[in-house]
Amino acid sequence: MTTVAAYAAPAAKAPLERTTIERREVGEHDVLIDIRFAGICHSDIHQAREGWGDAIFPMVPGHEIAGVVSEVGPGVTAFRAGDRVGVGCMVDSCRECENCRAGREQYCTGGGMVGTYNALGKDGEPTYGGYSQKIVVDENYVVRIPDGLPLDVAAPLLCAGITTYSPLKRWGAGPGKKVAVLGMGGLGHMGVKIAHALGAEVTVLSQSLRKKDDGLKLGADHYRATSDPKTFEELRGSFDLILSTVSAPLDFDAYLSLLRTEGTLANVGAPEEPVSLNLFSVLGGGKTLAGSMIGGIAETQEMLDFCAEHGIGAEIELIDAAGINEAYERVLNSDVRYRFVIDTATI
Amino acid sequence: MTTVAAYAAPAAKAPLERTTIERREVGEHDVLIDIRFAGICHSDIHQAREGWGDAIFPMVPGHEIAGVVSEVGPGVTAFRAGDRVGVGCMVDSCRECENCRAGREQYCTGGGMVGTYNALGKDGEPTYGGYSQKIVVDENYVVRIPDGLPLDVAAPLLCAGITTYSPLKRWGAGPGKKVAVLGMGGLGHMGVKIAHALGAEVTVLSQSLRKKDDGLKLGADHYRATSDPKTFEELRGSFDLILSTVSAPLDFDAYLSLLRTEGTLANVGAPEEPVSLNLFSVLGGGKTLAGSMIGGIAETQEMLDFCAEHGIGAEIELIDAAGINEAYERVLNSDVRYRFVIDTATI
Repeated sequence: MTTVAAYAAPAAKAPLERTTIERREVGEHDVLIDIRFAGICHSDIHQAREGWGDAIFPMVPGHEIAGVVSEVGPGVTAFRAGDRVGVGCMVDSCRECENCRAGREQYCTGGGMVGTYNALGKDGEPTYGGYSQKIVVDENYVVRIPDGLPLDVAAPLLCAGITTYSPLKRWGAGPGKKVAVLGMGGLGHMGVKIAHALGAEVTVLSQSLRKKDDGLKLGADHYRATSDPKTFEELRGSFDLILSTVSAPLDFDAYLSLLRTEGTLANVGAPEEPVSLNLFSVLGGGKTLAGSMIGGIAETQEMLDFCAEHGIGAEIELIDAAGINEAYERVLNSDVRYRFVIDTATI
Repeated sequence: MTTVAAYAAPAAKAPLERTTIERREVGEHDVLIDIRFAGICHSDIHQAREGWGDAIFPMVPGHEIAGVVSEVGPGVTAFRAGDRVGVGCMVDSCRECENCRAGREQYCTGGGMVGTYNALGKDGEPTYGGYSQKIVVDENYVVRIPDGLPLDVAAPLLCAGITTYSPLKRWGAGPGKKVAVLGMGGLGHMGVKIAHALGAEVTVLSQSLRKKDDGLKLGADHYRATSDPKTFEELRGSFDLILSTVSAPLDFDAYLSLLRTEGTLANVGAPEEPVSLNLFSVLGGGKTLAGSMIGGIAETQEMLDFCAEHGIGAEIELIDAAGINEAYERVLNSDVRYRFVIDTATI
């Protein structure tokens, strides 16, 4: 066991504070990672405040982890000390079910994926995430960060990047396709960059035009305010794909009306309350309302390679660990451009 | 103009009664059809009672039409007198929009498809449907009924057949796929026959086991009652595709839980009220909730050819026109096995 400095929420809704946690010994197939940077995802806040149901405390959030390998177990073949690596939302899964075998570990049906934090590992111990200085992870759940990608802007790719890349690929974002990205936050700004790099014509749909200049700079072709009713009149039937990154309840019928025939509204946001849907909104036009949750390990590696090739990292505000609680408040107020990343040397 | 006997609803919710209507002269590209049989679709009742919004009266319902060509216009090339033909839910569309050109006339964006009844034709006159003895239709909206298919059991294919065939094909029902058909009525029983003929493993999900013997005889491999909570426990994560033919509001979260990873719940039923949906039901498992509305003209022909090849017709109760109002009551009570078809000689 190794004692490691970390920031933890001692109880639901309590401020995070500095503490220490124990990391397991490096096993046969384990990789010990010196964490350099950890992104702050909105879902860290949902979970630290028990917005998504019962949680495990103390909680060390963080599933956007970038660091450097400092030690590997004797059976590890894919990594060695000095490698630049990342860990995302999961650190294990059953490895035997149909989904695990198909590289869709995030949908593991053999007990479910083991979350990077707020979960119990196969050893029965709680998992602790990236707001800490070191982590031990089985090599099968570690991905390589290509040399061209700085670690600080790579960290958010491990959740925000793969969460948007996976549905954009699955529903065919590319040349000749019109894609709308709904929401211009941590997920949304990654969606814009990736959809643009995939070759799609990208429109941002955001509450206001406040971030318009940023959106166009990141690769959007158009930027429209959803607070303006004209947006819904003029863009009716426009998009092949709408990627919704919004966690607030939406008027889904209105957004479905913006899709072309047989278009898809893919949701990666997770409102806490049920939404209302008029089925005529999908019947007329053969449309689909879909969900998508992160991506598998191999797909996460593919996304990192794609981002490196296209020079894509997150837009970040680098903070010291002491600023985590303030950063949480700012995330809740949508006041971040566009992802807080913790410099874990400051823990 | 030709005067034709018909059954019409004189006003919303009023009983249907015998009347006469005028059919237009046979134009350059028109086909005059002697209607032999007309199916009674649940949507006839929705519209005759204005359940789906403002309607046009008097209304002659009927969009499951089978008959024989008696005359063709001079420019008609595809049909001649004596041909066995069908007409479904539409009799025209703009023919120029992207969807019309792609054979998805049902989703015409150039003003919308012209419904077979309860619509205005391009000449500005109301359209009247199949509860009548003759109809004049542009040849592009007429399909051929293959010789092997008796006209009475073919009539319901023009709506119930294509409405289920199109989503079953689009979402890959076939060998190795597990398909559930939700609801065992006019649409559902066609879904069972077609999904079985496509090679899928078919499960009927019905409120009770009352029609179980029929379901198994029509091609279902399994038949489960949705009133039994065990159904939802035992079939969790089972289906690649669920075809919902139900027009009543459903617990969509419960049905989505029956899908496998990346499975699809395709809706062809049209509840009049909005439904509630928890987005976590689609997020966890990358699932989709989709809609589908009938099918295009070419796909309707493909469906008829498929049904003829596999010996598939509807299960029908043939009635006289005088029995239409009673039949409506029985449809509303789910008391029909499985489609009423009017013998239009009795009008």
